Amino acid sequence: MRELEEKILAEGRAVSEDILKVDSFINHQVEPALMKRMGEAFAAHFEGRGITKVVTIESSGITPALMTALALDVPMIIFKKQPSKILNDDLYQTVVTSYTKETSYELTLSKKYISENDHVLIIDDFLANGEAATGVLRLLRKAHATVAGFGVLIEKSFQPGRAKLEEQGIDVYALARIGKMSAGHIEFLPEK
Amino acid sequence: MRELEEKILAEGRAVSEDILKVDSFINHQVEPALMKRMGEAFAAHFEGRGITKVVTIESSGITPALMTALALDVPMIIFKKQPSKILNDDLYQTVVTSYTKETSYELTLSKKYISENDHVLIIDDFLANGEAATGVLRLLRKAHATVAGFGVLIEKSFQPGRAKLEEQGIDVYALARIGKMSAGHIEFLPEK
Repeated sequence: MRELEEKILAEGRAVSEDILKVDSFINHQVEPALMKRMGEAFAAHFEGRGITKVVTIESSGITPALMTALALDVPMIIFKKQPSKILNDDLYQTVVTSYTKETSYELTLSKKYISENDHVLIIDDFLANGEAATGVLRLLRKAHATVAGFGVLIEKSFQPGRAKLEEQGIDVYALARIGKMSAGHIEFLPEK
Repeated sequence: MRELEEKILAEGRAVSEDILKVDSFINHQVEPALMKRMGEAFAAHFEGRGITKVVTIESSGITPALMTALALDVPMIIFKKQPSKILNDDLYQTVVTSYTKETSYELTLSKKYISENDHVLIIDDFLANGEAATGVLRLLRKAHATVAGFGVLIEKSFQPGRAKLEEQGIDVYALARIGKMSAGHIEFLPEK
């Protein structure tokens, strides 16, 4: 998406070979009209696939997921990050370890909101190593739901997230694909 | 807002005199079209006041705040919850203690995103004891910003949050006001 690439070049800050700050329009400050257009771009790409729910992980995935769900006119489910396992038969849980942030959490989903009848679109802000996304896939399998695809605002194409998802047969659609990065410099790859 | 009251009666679960679960349409599963109408209701109430930013706290305030900011066509800022103080001159921080959840966190705002030129609308999902809201007010004072009002989806009117904010001269607008609650029973107060 040209508009997002231009925004990243104008306001994003590549602080190293793998850290990109987009605090001014995605993570801390959000531009609602741009986020709405990005949600509509995901909806346009994935429409006609019988999607019943859009899911994401708290908290930076919430804004693009909400706008995508609005455009598709389906409910949005926020998978919660809990510090430790909750003993409750009504929940699905799985441990996600983020190597980037050196933290672990229990990704949590109430059994009420996803079932075997659901065909789910996953939306997130970043795809890097794919730890969070594969955690979501584990919970969706526990719920016997099927996956319509994975939409992400920004893919770090030099990290293995996309490959991990594609190995599992998931259609990955990124609005911006970063091929290479260093302090002050960002190179994009074409849409895929 | 009649639609929200009816939704709370149909799907909310009053589990005690002070705990209301609205997981099926606000906190865990979100209904985007309803959330959009609620954002538009906030925008209609507060419009014409020169609002420059909508702010909220991660993570359940994000969906109503985004829809309000979209309707007002201004940026939305997410105040972050950090487990401990970050030593960084670019940030405002204040400790918020939640008595309901028995936890404390550092509410965090980058200095870049709110300034003395901002007139800010605060949006959140619940108003109960007002701890989070008064934490937001402390950070806005540090930034020398002014406050246009506080909009909340659900007010627990039997708890002191509204009074705390009104004492500071804040206009509080709630889409649903719960006057009394017990397991399986909810009573609303009229709009104020």
